[in-house]
Amino acid sequence: MALIVQKFGGSSVADTARVQNVARIITDTYKQGNDVVVVLSAQGDTTDDLIAKAKEINPKASKREMDMLLSTGEQISVSLCAMAIEAMGYQAVSLTGWQAGMLTDSNYSAARIKRVRAERIQKELDKKKIVLVTGFQGINKYDDITTLGRGGSDTSAVALAAALHADLCQIYTDVDGVYTADPRHVTGAKKLDEITFDEMLELASLGAQVLHNRSVEMAKRYNVNMEVLSSLSGNPGTKVKEVVKTMEKTHVSGVAKDKNVARIALVGLADQPGIAFKIFSLLAKEKVNVDIILQSIGREESKDISFTVSQDDMEKAKQVMEANQDVIGFKSLEVTDQVAKISIVGAGMANNSGVACKMFEALFSASINIHMISTSEIKVSVLVDERDAERAVQAIHDRFFSEFASN
Amino acid sequence: MALIVQKFGGSSVADTARVQNVARIITDTYKQGNDVVVVLSAQGDTTDDLIAKAKEINPKASKREMDMLLSTGEQISVSLCAMAIEAMGYQAVSLTGWQAGMLTDSNYSAARIKRVRAERIQKELDKKKIVLVTGFQGINKYDDITTLGRGGSDTSAVALAAALHADLCQIYTDVDGVYTADPRHVTGAKKLDEITFDEMLELASLGAQVLHNRSVEMAKRYNVNMEVLSSLSGNPGTKVKEVVKTMEKTHVSGVAKDKNVARIALVGLADQPGIAFKIFSLLAKEKVNVDIILQSIGREESKDISFTVSQDDMEKAKQVMEANQDVIGFKSLEVTDQVAKISIVGAGMANNSGVACKMFEALFSASINIHMISTSEIKVSVLVDERDAERAVQAIHDRFFSEFASN
Repeated sequence: MALIVQKFGGSSVADTARVQNVARIITDTYKQGNDVVVVLSAQGDTTDDLIAKAKEINPKASKREMDMLLSTGEQISVSLCAMAIEAMGYQAVSLTGWQAGMLTDSNYSAARIKRVRAERIQKELDKKKIVLVTGFQGINKYDDITTLGRGGSDTSAVALAAALHADLCQIYTDVDGVYTADPRHVTGAKKLDEITFDEMLELASLGAQVLHNRSVEMAKRYNVNMEVLSSLSGNPGTKVKEVVKTMEKTHVSGVAKDKNVARIALVGLADQPGIAFKIFSLLAKEKVNVDIILQSIGREESKDISFTVSQDDMEKAKQVMEANQDVIGFKSLEVTDQVAKISIVGAGMANNSGVACKMFEALFSASINIHMISTSEIKVSVLVDERDAERAVQAIHDRFFSEFASN
Repeated sequence: MALIVQKFGGSSVADTARVQNVARIITDTYKQGNDVVVVLSAQGDTTDDLIAKAKEINPKASKREMDMLLSTGEQISVSLCAMAIEAMGYQAVSLTGWQAGMLTDSNYSAARIKRVRAERIQKELDKKKIVLVTGFQGINKYDDITTLGRGGSDTSAVALAAALHADLCQIYTDVDGVYTADPRHVTGAKKLDEITFDEMLELASLGAQVLHNRSVEMAKRYNVNMEVLSSLSGNPGTKVKEVVKTMEKTHVSGVAKDKNVARIALVGLADQPGIAFKIFSLLAKEKVNVDIILQSIGREESKDISFTVSQDDMEKAKQVMEANQDVIGFKSLEVTDQVAKISIVGAGMANNSGVACKMFEALFSASINIHMISTSEIKVSVLVDERDAERAVQAIHDRFFSEFASN
């Protein structure tokens, strides 16, 4: 007998048939002798519909009231799902964020979970009930409802799994698991049986978008075993854990693409110390997150510095640079969002320099130009023209994952 | 400066324009220097839509989960209305039943308010905020969400007004106030400026359906001054209070019609003591509420007893009688739902026997047959054929309220 936390996303509970499907998965798990705690998102487009309603009334509504409004979506999901479970002859009880003891800070619309007071859930489990908890929401010290921001239901599930010392936290989505590349775009993409937290973190931040990053960070911190799987296929998914069995063998677990990238290049900087510090402290002050940084080697007493930011921050970064042209002392500024970041992720990569080399070779064979390169312990990223992005992913994936590739 | 509780029903907040209209009424009241606490129902058909969703999943869903589901409707209303008030430049805060301290018993779907812990509301009023509270719901001792049953928002408003010692509890609906008869069906129906709690109670129970009866009972118990008025017209409404100024003058304040009536007649009973006791104790055991009772005078050692019940209870009452034919000892049973109850209501009626007489005269003039008669301190009811109901109301109303009538 184990304690299993199961999380189902909005598309998994979008209508009556899907709610009943989810109820079947839950009761099947329960029938096998497990204690089951379920976390649900709002049905289908409910959250978007509520946001639209609010915008019509007040485009600048306070976040406190937005959270009050949006938290109803998950409450509808859990009560309906509890009814579906009751209809199958099992005992269920649905709980809101405050009933389940999800204590958060007061950062409305993007709150962080501070603590889970799991007494109520434990009491219901002791009564042999299936417990359903609203994802995405909690309560702050003023007894006001907060939401965790988009994708927060994954975090709710992991937080509950950690607080309850669950044996497994299953995240059900509309995909079968974590793939070596986006299976909708890349031929030959393969499902991974296992992946480490660190690899998953890199993949999520690189745009694979299977799991919410905060949830993986929390799972890593509290060592919660996760599994990503489909609520529709019934197939085994991908296990996410601290150390995976196959780690020695595999060097690369996936290829990811991120189109939400802009590159800013400062041309003609004086080749003297302190320039980089000036640039990035100005950006930090404006809360612009910088990703890849490239500095050219100084030539003729002049050098260039380029860096990437998310496209949302592009305009702000441009303005900050322009406003400080005198202080920084560059000749010209080049800004483009016609770029994409392609990355390979794999634990143990740092011990195998051949991996990066193989990636560059694949891009060269496909005649794709590399603008920037960045490496970390478990990741190699390159910046390419946006129009080359799909081809780049396919070429790299073929090189690492095709049957004849020597991975 | 006064403290005013305002309650708006579901049709008053059905869409964005109406929410904004309600927000204007609220802020107008606030601008005049009043503290304002607002109670809202769910928007338009929200509650019915949620019930339909639940029925699709589980026609026999537990009441605990139904309450969890339905309580979201009011939460959506209060947060949207708070946003509308914010958009007008005022500070508002929305509170759910549990946040507002509405403590109820655990009778899910028909809970009764046990106590209001108004500290949170008082704190927000002290901050000069407009406070919006979800109607229709509360929380029980297990920290579970309960609902008060249909029309419970009126009760929420009165309970809050009582707990906060409010100066006035305004119930906004889609009618202008309380009329001498249903203005949609009766020509010449007039709006009353004032009415007593007792009269209002009789009118509500007789099918006038302007106010939820529980709310009037509670208002009477805690002596909360109520006013019924329209959220659309802006006209003054009808005040409901313990003693009205005009009481000495008026004998009849309204004519009401109730079609949800069935008559059951037991024919050929033995004329001996204890029969009535047997019949009505059997019905009481099955929780059938009996309204009017008529017993014929015994003739030839046999008598008849007829009584009325609501149409919902008709089948059950019939079954109970049939199952106990031996014990009760009647010859035949007559059951019909083709009847209606017409009543006149007025404080001080008991001191004026002419009132009942005038009512019978009006029915006689209109050639309408009376099946049963029942009288109380402030009410005279008659049972007539359902097909005569509309004409009966009009005839009685004309007799009492037409300009030439000597009321």
